[in-house]
Amino acid sequence: MLDFNPVDLIIAKRDGYALAPDDLRSLVEAYTQGSVPDYQMSAFLMAAYLRGLNERETLALTEQMLYSGIVLDLSHLPGIKVDKHSTGGVGDKVSLLLAPIVAACGVPVPMISGRGLSHTGGTLDKLEAIPGFRTDLSIDAYRHQLETLGVVMIGQTDEIAPADRMLYALRDVTGTVEFIPFIAASIMSKKLAAGIDALVLDVKCGRGAFMKTEEEARKLAETLVGLGEKFGKKTVAWITDMDAPLGYCIGNWPETAEAIRCLKGARVSDLMKVTYVLAGEMLSLGGVAESTIDGIRRAKEAVTSGKAFERFVQLVEAQGGDPTFLDNPEQREGAPPVDLVRAPDEAHGYVADLDPLQLGRVAAAMGAGRLRKGDAVDPTAGITLNKKPGDTVEAGEVLAWLHTRMTDDLPFFQQAVVQAFTYSDTPPVPALLLHDRYADGQWANQ
Amino acid sequence: MLDFNPVDLIIAKRDGYALAPDDLRSLVEAYTQGSVPDYQMSAFLMAAYLRGLNERETLALTEQMLYSGIVLDLSHLPGIKVDKHSTGGVGDKVSLLLAPIVAACGVPVPMISGRGLSHTGGTLDKLEAIPGFRTDLSIDAYRHQLETLGVVMIGQTDEIAPADRMLYALRDVTGTVEFIPFIAASIMSKKLAAGIDALVLDVKCGRGAFMKTEEEARKLAETLVGLGEKFGKKTVAWITDMDAPLGYCIGNWPETAEAIRCLKGARVSDLMKVTYVLAGEMLSLGGVAESTIDGIRRAKEAVTSGKAFERFVQLVEAQGGDPTFLDNPEQREGAPPVDLVRAPDEAHGYVADLDPLQLGRVAAAMGAGRLRKGDAVDPTAGITLNKKPGDTVEAGEVLAWLHTRMTDDLPFFQQAVVQAFTYSDTPPVPALLLHDRYADGQWANQ
Repeated sequence: MLDFNPVDLIIAKRDGYALAPDDLRSLVEAYTQGSVPDYQMSAFLMAAYLRGLNERETLALTEQMLYSGIVLDLSHLPGIKVDKHSTGGVGDKVSLLLAPIVAACGVPVPMISGRGLSHTGGTLDKLEAIPGFRTDLSIDAYRHQLETLGVVMIGQTDEIAPADRMLYALRDVTGTVEFIPFIAASIMSKKLAAGIDALVLDVKCGRGAFMKTEEEARKLAETLVGLGEKFGKKTVAWITDMDAPLGYCIGNWPETAEAIRCLKGARVSDLMKVTYVLAGEMLSLGGVAESTIDGIRRAKEAVTSGKAFERFVQLVEAQGGDPTFLDNPEQREGAPPVDLVRAPDEAHGYVADLDPLQLGRVAAAMGAGRLRKGDAVDPTAGITLNKKPGDTVEAGEVLAWLHTRMTDDLPFFQQAVVQAFTYSDTPPVPALLLHDRYADGQWANQ
Repeated sequence: MLDFNPVDLIIAKRDGYALAPDDLRSLVEAYTQGSVPDYQMSAFLMAAYLRGLNERETLALTEQMLYSGIVLDLSHLPGIKVDKHSTGGVGDKVSLLLAPIVAACGVPVPMISGRGLSHTGGTLDKLEAIPGFRTDLSIDAYRHQLETLGVVMIGQTDEIAPADRMLYALRDVTGTVEFIPFIAASIMSKKLAAGIDALVLDVKCGRGAFMKTEEEARKLAETLVGLGEKFGKKTVAWITDMDAPLGYCIGNWPETAEAIRCLKGARVSDLMKVTYVLAGEMLSLGGVAESTIDGIRRAKEAVTSGKAFERFVQLVEAQGGDPTFLDNPEQREGAPPVDLVRAPDEAHGYVADLDPLQLGRVAAAMGAGRLRKGDAVDPTAGITLNKKPGDTVEAGEVLAWLHTRMTDDLPFFQQAVVQAFTYSDTPPVPALLLHDRYADGQWANQ
């Protein structure tokens, strides 16, 4: 028997009242343990979505989700453990670069990542595009590798925040996904369970992100940082642009290959700008750099010196991945483009705009993404761009190369990629890549 | 496979859009057939509760619920079949009086009633307080009795509006009961399924009703009448007062006994005022009276002449009830009061106010009501009032008699009944019993 009536809590939230933290925790606990059924929880989720959750409620929800599973204690390991989380975008392979760069600079990185969903990619899918790479390490193996290599990248295990998995599955089928308190509680309960000391957040903003507007992105950043601080973890958030794809490659292996090339020194300016600023933050939080600027300098050195790439190779080998293609990623079977997309007759002057949501959806349709949780992905499917906003263009020039096994649908994919581009006679105003930084309760530029 | 995605409809409603009638019908149909699960329907119900349903949506919902089961056709029987529905109050035994009065005047009454829930009573429970009375007649027996006796009173069968039963059960446990479009669709889908030609609605308003404010009551009345008219049934609604109990008796057998006494000529003014005006409406709609006023006159004659009581005795016998106590209802075993409640020392002057919600809750606690669907009720439990608002009172006078088997809790019940009364030095302003009448798209007094 429950010592509370779930209907009373549903009605209180429906009528716009804030719940006492203990009541909200009891509700989530009872749901996780099966004594509150899905149909009551989904009514509560919708009431919360439409009526809101305040800071204290969001904190209570996060806490209950966090303590629904094991909370790792890595305090016996030396160093300040720092993780990074991105809210998801198109072409966002930053985590693959950050983890080895930051670890090579001496800050331990225990990273728990997710899978791609909808039009966005996921770090786990990108890592698993390396043949043999295992992301399902045991907790013991996770600790051991962090201790010996200073970096480990896994997925959410059954033991970590099981309430988040149950709630996410229910939100997914009841229209209650896109709600900042739920999104924040889901992210932070998983991140806090991993035993980190500090966290850097990349809150994506724009058409290719879940947060379409800067206002939403700022609210999410404030909520995430507020939660991190309340749990005693130093937390910094950047709002970065997702109104164009990041880098030139979209899709799992294409993105991993681009990350490898960048670790080896290739200069993809938007991608590396985001990577270095986040690396600078992680190194500063990790106590290795004196400031973010100093951290950025150290991160660049780690790439130039080859140490970051070396650490990546060690990471791949430690987690069972085949290092064969790390030196020549273009030689991986299936990776070569099967066809290309040419600029149409009306193309002239400059690429004015490139819609990341459209490209993300096409890449997913080509096999790179999943429509539902649990769907398999084609690791080599995706898009390699030849033109990005600001580049000059003429009719007939190559806009992009397509990688897909679904060759029957190529005309459809080509047309859809063409539609993502618009043109202008004059160079477009460059997008502001790094919108703003939030830490210690303050925005840098507001 | 569904040819629509329930999540899309949930999200559309969540974001405040009106659904196409066909989409809403498809959703309810799929839920009724088991292909949309409870947890999706409850999220939809909460989204609808908080975002609203417009007239077209409410109509579509009602239609789908109505046609989820059999819709009786009584058109082969002579006469205009008229039913009455009350939204529920405390001491509301009007249906027990109306059905025989109206039938005695020549208008067939096919009445499908409900059970009590929470602090309100239900006509079925009151009828079943007569030993042997059966409310579970088959559809055939229902038709036959209506044809031969002109009146039949049963409960909702499994065949009638099964979608309503499923949705009501889900609403009850997900905090989505008190929402006018759901309440209206639930009432009208059942009433319309019974094969009626016209309907009179008693929308209760006040502390003892589900609609606490006149504004809510008016909105519900307009919604109910609008639905009735859209299905081609002449529908009239009265808003009547439920800020004090109706009549002097609360509880199943106590209320049935009071109805019997009134059918035999006892003058309980508030109860009979409501009864006669609703009877007048039914007789006018039924084509037997020239006007509501003429109908009221005929209804009074049916009581004075004894024809209404005679018809009630026939009804009880036809449905298996034991007529022994109909002539002397006070002799029914268990009915005599086990204790009384005296006016406290501060009582003086007049009874200023009597809270029906408080009395309804005490009566339910004494065994007359049910906290959950399916609970058994004690047919003889209840309260008989000796004082009502406007009556003079002195300390030590009897306020009420209590009927209960739960004698251990008598002190608690007595105290709770005392708390329902307040007093004043001057006579209180009499409550307006009949607030307003709505028909043909117009309010009489507004």
